[in-house]
Amino acid sequence: MDEFALIERFFASAGVERPEVRLGVGDDAALVAPPPDHLAAIATDTIVSGVHFPPETDPAAIGHRALGVNLSDLAAMGATPAYALIALSLPRAESKWLAAFAEAFGALAHAHGVAIIGGDTTRSEVLTVTVTVVGWLAPGAVALTRSGARAGDLLAVSGTPGDAAAGLASLREGDTSAHARTLQQRFAFPAPRVACGQRLLGVATSAIDVSDGLLADGQKLAEASGARLVIEARSLPVSEALVQGHGRDGAEHFALTGGDDYELLFTLPRECEPALVAIASDAACPLSVIGEVVEVDGALGPGASVTRDGCAVALSTAGYRHFHA
Amino acid sequence: MDEFALIERFFASAGVERPEVRLGVGDDAALVAPPPDHLAAIATDTIVSGVHFPPETDPAAIGHRALGVNLSDLAAMGATPAYALIALSLPRAESKWLAAFAEAFGALAHAHGVAIIGGDTTRSEVLTVTVTVVGWLAPGAVALTRSGARAGDLLAVSGTPGDAAAGLASLREGDTSAHARTLQQRFAFPAPRVACGQRLLGVATSAIDVSDGLLADGQKLAEASGARLVIEARSLPVSEALVQGHGRDGAEHFALTGGDDYELLFTLPRECEPALVAIASDAACPLSVIGEVVEVDGALGPGASVTRDGCAVALSTAGYRHFHA
Repeated sequence: MDEFALIERFFASAGVERPEVRLGVGDDAALVAPPPDHLAAIATDTIVSGVHFPPETDPAAIGHRALGVNLSDLAAMGATPAYALIALSLPRAESKWLAAFAEAFGALAHAHGVAIIGGDTTRSEVLTVTVTVVGWLAPGAVALTRSGARAGDLLAVSGTPGDAAAGLASLREGDTSAHARTLQQRFAFPAPRVACGQRLLGVATSAIDVSDGLLADGQKLAEASGARLVIEARSLPVSEALVQGHGRDGAEHFALTGGDDYELLFTLPRECEPALVAIASDAACPLSVIGEVVEVDGALGPGASVTRDGCAVALSTAGYRHFHA
Repeated sequence: MDEFALIERFFASAGVERPEVRLGVGDDAALVAPPPDHLAAIATDTIVSGVHFPPETDPAAIGHRALGVNLSDLAAMGATPAYALIALSLPRAESKWLAAFAEAFGALAHAHGVAIIGGDTTRSEVLTVTVTVVGWLAPGAVALTRSGARAGDLLAVSGTPGDAAAGLASLREGDTSAHARTLQQRFAFPAPRVACGQRLLGVATSAIDVSDGLLADGQKLAEASGARLVIEARSLPVSEALVQGHGRDGAEHFALTGGDDYELLFTLPRECEPALVAIASDAACPLSVIGEVVEVDGALGPGASVTRDGCAVALSTAGYRHFHA
């Protein structure tokens, strides 16, 4: 297995071409000319077989996930994706597997205008994919961060959280019903909310992408902001498939504690709520207000809590455990 | 194990602070304001336990290597290192191990002015470290690449290649002699030739860092340049420790075929040869002319070959195999 041959064969042409890339895959480093006065957003995320996905997962789903979870990080900053580097450690180099992996990786790269500018392929007993992404924020744009939530803001979420975790659970149970298959697709091919994040620039006061569950990631956002989030369970936007499989209460539980959705959880000033309709339409992604930001209570400190019909609900804020984390 | 706690505890303060980093570790992505009119050089490299180093390797050596091999890629472009992101997959989170790993990683980051701006920590049965580095090339600087070697150029190398491979071999044999220990240190703590690469801007016509062996990496440089490299074995700068352990001929063999040295192999116009003395002195790194670039011979095509006392020597150009690649 020659790493250079592998990378060049499967990945060099998988992304888009971007004029500011002066030298792409094939040298010791890539060379990029940053657009003037832009801020670079840079993130790296690893997925490991048997930890983040079952070992028997379709290579297309692995390729999609490897890039998708990273694009989700850029989405949460409001950045526009531009480049990716892929470090692939795998037990064997099988052309068929690599072709399916690279095709899905490349399809998502194309969908988001991402150039693949570098990589490394190594042998390892455990399939491990680390992707690094770079995105840009145009001059004047103030990036979304986790720390800007303020008491009085509304709390909102994209999409229908809970689907991915329920999909994973149904996969492990061997459930092949129609609603289970819908949820399994949501686990296998999470859609990074890139357009949504960009449209939220100047509107949202804070954002985080939901990889560990609404409550666990809400907790992180709350701590970074020094605020308290209150999520109203009855306001959670749950999918029909999730309710079919688990009832309304079960669906709410998945939405609060399930991970792997890669939806955006964000806060916004109350007066911006009407703007969400146009943003959801532009970004082709449902947006729902699910709660609010309140002052930190002296006894509790910053954090996230849940109400159901306005009454406090006790729920562990422990993070969702991925496949086998 | 909480990945955020881990990363923040061990890595966030391990690097330097850089004013153009607007947001470091702890959000969904880091934010960086690129210096105006600079080119970014970006590279990613993975090291895997049992493949790139023996599993029982000292965590300090693993931390040093993880960053070092990446800085070596920037060195080969002539870029000035600026930021690193570290994706760490490991079986267990042991504070003592992490502290030693992070201290060595941080020491090398400090030595090269590198800010650690992001990361990801995941569980995996196999210790795997992927680092992504970003460096800058100042306005007007023409990056070193693999493709600029021209017939008539001289071929040169930094340091004393072969030491690392001989060190690894002696480690596997359990050799504890003084010269073996010297060579083992060279394997364990490779010095990325960052200052040397920067000083070679405007002087060298091409460069590559030597990870797979002089001959194998020379072959890559030759192919990228469409040229032939001729290495004269008797000109190879071999260390005293290497000759003590393996004799002059054995030392030459290690220098040509051994990997893991992370020295720079580069070409330069013949008239620039006198400049090497000052560059070697400035960069505190020996530089030696070891051959030349000649026209491609129709029958052979681009590639690298070896002479000893001017006579052709047959040697496989197969790449060095790392610990267990």
